[in-house]
Amino acid sequence: MTILDGKKVSNDIKNEIKTEVDAIKAKGERVPHLAAVIVGDDGASLTYVGSKVRACERVGFESTMVRLPYTTSEIELLRKIDELNNNDDIDGFIIQLPLPPQIDTQKVLMAVDPSKDVDGFHPENFGKMALDMSTFIPATPFGILELLERYKVNTKGKYTVVIGRSHIVGRPMSILMSRKGWPGNSTVTLTHSNTQNISEITIQADIVISALGVPNFLKADMVKEGVVVIDVGITRVADDSHPKGYVITGDVDFKNVSKKASFITPVPGGVGPMTIAMLLKNTLLARTQRRNA
Amino acid sequence: MTILDGKKVSNDIKNEIKTEVDAIKAKGERVPHLAAVIVGDDGASLTYVGSKVRACERVGFESTMVRLPYTTSEIELLRKIDELNNNDDIDGFIIQLPLPPQIDTQKVLMAVDPSKDVDGFHPENFGKMALDMSTFIPATPFGILELLERYKVNTKGKYTVVIGRSHIVGRPMSILMSRKGWPGNSTVTLTHSNTQNISEITIQADIVISALGVPNFLKADMVKEGVVVIDVGITRVADDSHPKGYVITGDVDFKNVSKKASFITPVPGGVGPMTIAMLLKNTLLARTQRRNA
Repeated sequence: MTILDGKKVSNDIKNEIKTEVDAIKAKGERVPHLAAVIVGDDGASLTYVGSKVRACERVGFESTMVRLPYTTSEIELLRKIDELNNNDDIDGFIIQLPLPPQIDTQKVLMAVDPSKDVDGFHPENFGKMALDMSTFIPATPFGILELLERYKVNTKGKYTVVIGRSHIVGRPMSILMSRKGWPGNSTVTLTHSNTQNISEITIQADIVISALGVPNFLKADMVKEGVVVIDVGITRVADDSHPKGYVITGDVDFKNVSKKASFITPVPGGVGPMTIAMLLKNTLLARTQRRNA
Repeated sequence: MTILDGKKVSNDIKNEIKTEVDAIKAKGERVPHLAAVIVGDDGASLTYVGSKVRACERVGFESTMVRLPYTTSEIELLRKIDELNNNDDIDGFIIQLPLPPQIDTQKVLMAVDPSKDVDGFHPENFGKMALDMSTFIPATPFGILELLERYKVNTKGKYTVVIGRSHIVGRPMSILMSRKGWPGNSTVTLTHSNTQNISEITIQADIVISALGVPNFLKADMVKEGVVVIDVGITRVADDSHPKGYVITGDVDFKNVSKKASFITPVPGGVGPMTIAMLLKNTLLARTQRRNA
């Protein structure tokens, strides 16, 4: 059994990006610049954005955090997005979700210039992905592809089961795993809340990608010997024995499933760290495309 | 066993559209206007476009056929598209495929204004579909949804297997059948040329949608009793006993599979006629959206 070590791989990727940034600097060119917009004071959102800013520093990117009050109106946010779209010093930017209820999230994501949409959430970029065109792939699915690639996991002709049809993980993952190329070329089943007898499906899978958010959902008796398991779940489960008062728990009963698996991601330290690394990779790509445009 | 009668349903839809067009006329407003661009003299393409023009006449739409020579350059075609994008008298238009080799198809499809893209081939519209936003759904998948809906085929929690991952049928169909709502909410497996042991997958399916283009591929021993079968294949098979010298043949061994099926589409007269009806429906939608814009 091999652990798909997202912490290690994400570090490798950051080092590779840092090398590229150093080369950009050496040529006297402007380094990549990522901006993050956050509306309100949600603790988890601030933590996520904080990690993204620190990751930028780590690889030598410039970063800007745009903090707006919780009471920001939709039109004010759209005006800010327009500013970022037109700011030539910014290569890419993200809107941290969730947004306050007075703001239409879809309208906001549609307003981001697709060429700066490093989260890959704009429908034009999502459609390009589904139509096999080159584009920004959403960071979490992109991170999973990268893990599979770096550990040389064979996906061609394999049977992949994706659990959960969210816009940011399950849906894009189901598309990416069935695209031509590698990682890809899998036969993919997308399961969700209406799926009947899910264990009869997962038991057939060569690869299971779970993005459900239900702690310890995937049990050992639901998978076959030699399965590849990717756990995208990150749920906070209360635990008084830990200083934070909770532990981050995945969708997979790691202790027992790992005994049957050929490859498996841990939680934490699997898919999670990959997400930020791939956001940086998308930002570097945005910078390169703008320089070549 | 119930035949999903695409010929009848497409006629019903055309009648419904005609009624709406009559109401538009009665209000003294401009009727919907579809344009079709065809490059070169390919016989099949001319036949398809001819059918679309006749369908427009049938429901009272205006139509324009733009014929360009086979030697048209990419830049000339892009200029024509720009003209159609900016022509306020045109509600929607399509570029008949395939295009000659000197033209980059993807670049051309990207140039169509998404609000006039009644084929639903622009990545922005494709992405909206995948992200559950309202948009133009490509005509063939849209037609299949409409057939399932009008015959009240239950899809929720059912197991759907899609054969073929083309951009215009298999891929969008796999997305649409797994979306929330009805028809949808299926557990969907997308199979393709790299799929192993496909009959072990199809035999489990409640619904099989075949868009492979291999005559009589789906045999009776590959499906279970009560299956719903949608046959998207249309292959010309040489047959000297027919005046045209060929017969249009589906992916499904209809004679034997129909004995096990609860619902099945014939070929011809199933999915085929629905495609043009849904193109008209998209054009009417484009007209309505432009009037309300």
